[in-house]
Amino acid sequence: MSKEFFSIDFKDNKLIFIDQNKLPLVEDYIETDDYEIIAKAIERLAIRGAPAIGIAAAYALALSLKFKSSEEIFFIAYERLKQTRPTAVNLFKGLNLIKSRYESLTENEKKEAYTILIQEAKNFHIKDIESCENIAKNGIKIFDANKKYVVLTHCNTGAFATAGIGTALGIIKRAYEYGLIELVYVDETRPLFQGSRLTAFELEKCGIPFEIITDSTAAYLMKKKLVDLALVGADRIAANGDVANKIGTYNLAVVCKYHQIPLYVAAPETTIDYYAKSENDFIIEIRLSKEITEIKGLPISKSVYPAFAPAFDSTSSSLIDGIITDKNLYFYPYNFNE
Amino acid sequence: MSKEFFSIDFKDNKLIFIDQNKLPLVEDYIETDDYEIIAKAIERLAIRGAPAIGIAAAYALALSLKFKSSEEIFFIAYERLKQTRPTAVNLFKGLNLIKSRYESLTENEKKEAYTILIQEAKNFHIKDIESCENIAKNGIKIFDANKKYVVLTHCNTGAFATAGIGTALGIIKRAYEYGLIELVYVDETRPLFQGSRLTAFELEKCGIPFEIITDSTAAYLMKKKLVDLALVGADRIAANGDVANKIGTYNLAVVCKYHQIPLYVAAPETTIDYYAKSENDFIIEIRLSKEITEIKGLPISKSVYPAFAPAFDSTSSSLIDGIITDKNLYFYPYNFNE
Repeated sequence: MSKEFFSIDFKDNKLIFIDQNKLPLVEDYIETDDYEIIAKAIERLAIRGAPAIGIAAAYALALSLKFKSSEEIFFIAYERLKQTRPTAVNLFKGLNLIKSRYESLTENEKKEAYTILIQEAKNFHIKDIESCENIAKNGIKIFDANKKYVVLTHCNTGAFATAGIGTALGIIKRAYEYGLIELVYVDETRPLFQGSRLTAFELEKCGIPFEIITDSTAAYLMKKKLVDLALVGADRIAANGDVANKIGTYNLAVVCKYHQIPLYVAAPETTIDYYAKSENDFIIEIRLSKEITEIKGLPISKSVYPAFAPAFDSTSSSLIDGIITDKNLYFYPYNFNE
Repeated sequence: MSKEFFSIDFKDNKLIFIDQNKLPLVEDYIETDDYEIIAKAIERLAIRGAPAIGIAAAYALALSLKFKSSEEIFFIAYERLKQTRPTAVNLFKGLNLIKSRYESLTENEKKEAYTILIQEAKNFHIKDIESCENIAKNGIKIFDANKKYVVLTHCNTGAFATAGIGTALGIIKRAYEYGLIELVYVDETRPLFQGSRLTAFELEKCGIPFEIITDSTAAYLMKKKLVDLALVGADRIAANGDVANKIGTYNLAVVCKYHQIPLYVAAPETTIDYYAKSENDFIIEIRLSKEITEIKGLPISKSVYPAFAPAFDSTSSSLIDGIITDKNLYFYPYNFNE
């Protein structure tokens, strides 16, 4: 993992996170031990990306006990953090990990709850770094070693979305090191521009050639045979392989299918939610109209105009050629090893 | 045509146009008799929409003779205006109409060239207003009178794109008057937001219910069976029915096909370019990276990041269910009556 920039870190009993809303123009790191500040950061997408959200939430919940070992405060913090965002499964996995550990504590251990839970969050954090490396190892298998690829990606699935090199973008970084990448087309990813702001920033820092496009330009590039492969992340994966991911992913999956461009999804195995049988069980977060009609507080259109702003969409597994996790490279039809 | 707002008008020997870049927040009408100001307005999309560009260019070329009847100035103006934008055929038709009329003038008539050419431009202007009405008449035939439709549209094809009620949006306005429209989903239309800025403005003024979406949300709405019909305009139509239109149209056509949602294209018959046999003959305008990395001069991402910004894309006729002109409603495979 490059330490030149990172999404989250934990030092001196504080969470340090970069305010992703300000990127790439301003690199503003915030230090806090207040779980409410972290909750708000998740809500306003200053911390974003399914794995990163999970880790931040785990630290936040542990931090709720930093100044006082109070069960009441702990469960208030748990409920508060759970409400921040509904779609990514990692948030709940991170929170439940800390909650289970808390509930397993003996009365004696409870006095040390904060220290124990922070250690638990740190382990979860470290696992994500390793998980990214393993995703990249499995992901590299989809490339033919004798070819250079033009890859298209959506949203940000790199260091800003995880604690490590990333999921889909981590694979692209490793593939580039192996000489397998010619160019990366970066969907700007409306409405919040995670592609043009965050993915472009990471690619620039890694020296990987890229071009930003508007999301609806991808189909036109495919028609002109300029794209070899599409690689995206996931916020939740159902037991049958259906994927919830950033709005626009389903659109991309349809245009990939139409042009016979392979589409791969990369995510840690923990993104698989075995309680969700299919995409019908996904809860899709709907955000405020203003995320479409305004940009950084600047009205693009009239702010009062109605807009429909789902943060995610869902893609049927039949549209996905492969799912790459830290454990395996799965092909359709999906049969995960629970 | 509503006179509450308009794209272009000609009064007191001046062209009046609204600066579409400032809409919907500011309604700024500019009066000029300087063809260079009109050329720049076309280049920077203050005047936009294929039919509106054609009319503005015709007036601009005629205006070049307002103060001096000089053949040299006329042809300099002609060449200048021809360079403004390459894709929409209407620009060239408008300019060539005025040029042909100029070349047909007797030596005696040349003294009155300005008056004669302005009249020619006015006729062209009036024809577009009528053409919009006829497109709406032909377009209404695609609706089943016993149903209410949720229609999705891309870019702006209304009063701001024409001199009349519009092409695709003109049909929607008339269909709404007939009680056939339940809701209009408006693609915001990146990168320049003609949907969320201009189409939303027109729909609001006409009292038609609408919701703005990001362009890549359309596929997700279709998957959820929330869209009955898609209607778009055209900047150039090849002899075989292939269509050049705002970037994102091809993406929309592919997702319509995948979901079996009918897609119709509406444009005046003059948009058909019989010299273009197919989409292979289209010239697609590529605009500056900054149109993607900046919004209204505000950097969204780093302005230096490379972006690929085609203004248009092309859609094969096989993806288009019908083409509605002022003369006819054509169905695939297309055989226009030249």
